[in-house]
Amino acid sequence: MAPEACDLLIEAGHVVPVEPHGVVLADYAVAVRDGAIVAVLPIADARARFTAAQTVSRPDGVLIPGLVNAHVHNPMTLLRGVADDLPLMQWLQGHIWPIEAAVVAPDFIADGVTLAIAEMLRGGTTCCNENYFFPDVQAATYRKHGFRARVGLPVIDFPTAWARTSDEYFDRAGEVHDQWRNDPLVATAFAPHAPYTVSDANFERIRMLADQLDVPVHCHVHETAHEVAEARKTLGQSQIARLDRLGLVNDRLIAVHMTQLTDAEIALCAERGVSVAHCPESNLKLASGFCPIAKLAAAGVNLAIGTDGAASNNDLDMFGEMRTAALLAKAVGDDASAFDAFSALRAATLGGAKALGFEDAIGSIEAGKQADLVCVDMAALETQPLHHVVSQLVYACGRQQVSDVWIAGHRKLENRILIDMDVDAIVANARQWRDRIAAVRTA
Amino acid sequence: MAPEACDLLIEAGHVVPVEPHGVVLADYAVAVRDGAIVAVLPIADARARFTAAQTVSRPDGVLIPGLVNAHVHNPMTLLRGVADDLPLMQWLQGHIWPIEAAVVAPDFIADGVTLAIAEMLRGGTTCCNENYFFPDVQAATYRKHGFRARVGLPVIDFPTAWARTSDEYFDRAGEVHDQWRNDPLVATAFAPHAPYTVSDANFERIRMLADQLDVPVHCHVHETAHEVAEARKTLGQSQIARLDRLGLVNDRLIAVHMTQLTDAEIALCAERGVSVAHCPESNLKLASGFCPIAKLAAAGVNLAIGTDGAASNNDLDMFGEMRTAALLAKAVGDDASAFDAFSALRAATLGGAKALGFEDAIGSIEAGKQADLVCVDMAALETQPLHHVVSQLVYACGRQQVSDVWIAGHRKLENRILIDMDVDAIVANARQWRDRIAAVRTA
Repeated sequence: MAPEACDLLIEAGHVVPVEPHGVVLADYAVAVRDGAIVAVLPIADARARFTAAQTVSRPDGVLIPGLVNAHVHNPMTLLRGVADDLPLMQWLQGHIWPIEAAVVAPDFIADGVTLAIAEMLRGGTTCCNENYFFPDVQAATYRKHGFRARVGLPVIDFPTAWARTSDEYFDRAGEVHDQWRNDPLVATAFAPHAPYTVSDANFERIRMLADQLDVPVHCHVHETAHEVAEARKTLGQSQIARLDRLGLVNDRLIAVHMTQLTDAEIALCAERGVSVAHCPESNLKLASGFCPIAKLAAAGVNLAIGTDGAASNNDLDMFGEMRTAALLAKAVGDDASAFDAFSALRAATLGGAKALGFEDAIGSIEAGKQADLVCVDMAALETQPLHHVVSQLVYACGRQQVSDVWIAGHRKLENRILIDMDVDAIVANARQWRDRIAAVRTA
Repeated sequence: MAPEACDLLIEAGHVVPVEPHGVVLADYAVAVRDGAIVAVLPIADARARFTAAQTVSRPDGVLIPGLVNAHVHNPMTLLRGVADDLPLMQWLQGHIWPIEAAVVAPDFIADGVTLAIAEMLRGGTTCCNENYFFPDVQAATYRKHGFRARVGLPVIDFPTAWARTSDEYFDRAGEVHDQWRNDPLVATAFAPHAPYTVSDANFERIRMLADQLDVPVHCHVHETAHEVAEARKTLGQSQIARLDRLGLVNDRLIAVHMTQLTDAEIALCAERGVSVAHCPESNLKLASGFCPIAKLAAAGVNLAIGTDGAASNNDLDMFGEMRTAALLAKAVGDDASAFDAFSALRAATLGGAKALGFEDAIGSIEAGKQADLVCVDMAALETQPLHHVVSQLVYACGRQQVSDVWIAGHRKLENRILIDMDVDAIVANARQWRDRIAAVRTA
């Protein structure tokens, strides 16, 4: 049989495809053609079957699907560590909001997203679920750098730099959606800020439009005990019950945080196909509470993992977030076997892809899916001895061990070097923003 | 005035001395002579005052005291990830103990400690509190690599590869202590395994000898709710109450874990000067519970931070552990301002030094102390923009940003390269142990 041509053959010491679950393949290869995976097979078979334009050999590498960061506010990367160790309202009202009022504009958005893309790529993240103002600028920036994203179309019941009235929010949402509807990398979602900042009328409008446009609804839900208590007091029901009344508790919903949940609410989310975007480090740092991951997993709820914004984390490190998610789930669930390493990796890849409605394209290493791939170098002494590949990935590995990244078959990181981004220029630009923000603060 | 000679002048963009608390010094230098810090002063003043045999300039660097890992089982680094995501007793009885029974011997100890030293140095740790068998081999290994350590002299009520009877444990403890009593880097401590594996008689003997030899007592205490409940059932009191009855609740005690504490027990620990070695990631991973850090800090208890062994963490990453400690304290204490970044850094340096009885020698950057110093490169885009140096250190920085490490003025890491350790040989040796341990498991 004549060899088959492919663009790229990646040969790795191990491949963790994520689907099927719990599988680690030794000495496997992934063949890529036209940006998609055409085969996952033993190295020897791959060499016999394919003639590759390029072969990348990583005998100490573990190939995993690109990580999906299910909840970010990436322009806020420019506010990383600007104010920490403060109660939530003091942090927002005394620091974040006044700074945002002074700086949020298209240049802040583009520069913050660019810094975030560079950080995400160096850490093995190939896709994110963005939630901030100016989705038009975000989308253009993700596209420019060949990064995969859902950009949220914000809706909030008060004026911002992005829009002033509800009608204006929806008009602009429609424009951005139309502009990106057929893009292979960038898509949109609705991003109502939170149940307590969006009216019933706007939620109903979102539900109708999300169905029409076939996009997810990305919303902070039950973030804190205070939020839940307030809703019970003012509405006489939880915000999840309210969203259910408004028709939004369904398989389009990406419910972020969810630190407070009754067993009945967990059962409802499972039944309706809701995805939960768990942001463990942000929840810890802001003392928001503990998302009951073990219970959600047991109920069959789709779990994704997000870092949240770098102003409340303070990084976009999905390796760290996977580890924290797995560790915390055990302590909160009082069960050392809860949310094992394979489950954490799945949430950070296929779970995120499913939440974003991208599960047909990404999230696992399977023939037919896009070649969003990450190679992790396990030869570092920090991950020796290598008794168990996925344990080391989740519990010991640092994001600096990511050696190579591809998105849709395009190499974005090679031996730790960003292919088409200028790190020095990005750092210099971040320093310029540090000075501008410091000037705002002392003004 | 004629310039003063010194061996080493380190000029850094920032110096965080830890003592005084909460201080960040910009454009500062540290002068070192005969292994000790002779001055901490502005770079311009340092250049005028000193003629240095060597000057190291790190304009993007932050100089911090070497990190002190307050609780390790470093030979177990060879068991990193060998069995994860299991309930504690299944993990110990089904995996860790049978493997240990087959492999624990001097070569395992020396090789495990060597791997751990390399990992610790690359991550900015310069001192550790060791707790395992064969302290003679441990001590020799730490000394060989110029690493600072307290090695625990194990006492446990059953036979192990180290000793068979109580008398033998104490005889061997005395021998190891005598051998290392005057060493500048390595000292000993008593390391009774845990209250539930050591008899009253042995605890009383430890108390007497610890006073005589002037060494700390390093012990797992109140690790799990199960342990506390068992003690109440069988002894009619908590293990802390029992240790108090036996005279061990004092300023020699390094109480490790302490996930279960009443307010009265916290007050007792504060009054008696007990140090708590908090191991947040291990406590999470084994679902042991949550150490009440915010309450302990408020009561004035000295706090140190440890990684625990790499079999239950799975790394020796004190940057990760500081971050987890700070994040978790907020959620457990229901207060986003609890255990701020400065407090986490202090616990990981001076708090650890104090717990180990080393506070006169290390833990802060002050004239007269030993030059155990770590330089962290903050130019990486992952820590940009640099709005707040200590926030970025604790919440965003990865251990791979450690560029340089000195112990007692000797350079151990230079631009990420270990000065006098062969990483390739260490990795090759770890791989050999992986194979040996795999053979045990399938035997």
